Amino acid sequence: MKARVTVMLKSGVLDPQGKAIGQALGRLGFAGVGDVRQGKVIELELDETDQGKARAKLSDMCEKLLANTVIENYAIELR
Amino acid sequence: MKARVTVMLKSGVLDPQGKAIGQALGRLGFAGVGDVRQGKVIELELDETDQGKARAKLSDMCEKLLANTVIENYAIELR
Repeated sequence: MKARVTVMLKSGVLDPQGKAIGQALGRLGFAGVGDVRQGKVIELELDETDQGKARAKLSDMCEKLLANTVIENYAIELR
Repeated sequence: MKARVTVMLKSGVLDPQGKAIGQALGRLGFAGVGDVRQGKVIELELDETDQGKARAKLSDMCEKLLANTVIENYAIELR
């Protein structure tokens, strides 16, 4: 099973990378760009075939390694 | 309009970050994890209301700044 985990900074947390991208886009002449946020995406190939178990395992991975849940949110998608 | 751009290394390109995550998951006791790839996700707020124009603009942004198209693929999603 293929899974995708998206990790983004929580909305209150300052995102200097996103800010830098927004400013660079402005300098390149792209107008009308508002807030920009950058995050990580992790694609994993899992042996697990049960959707529920896979989701539970991925949540566990996020809590333990993939995300810093103090400042980051994560979202799990299964394909 | 909200847009999400996902930038991943092309499949032939070595991904040491993904490898490191895969190994760390193994050390933490997560079995059955195959290939792991890490990429970037960029969320943008655009003033543009026309889907086609927004998509064209985002492609242009990816080609010029957000992705290194020699080694990276990008995908655009609009909400």
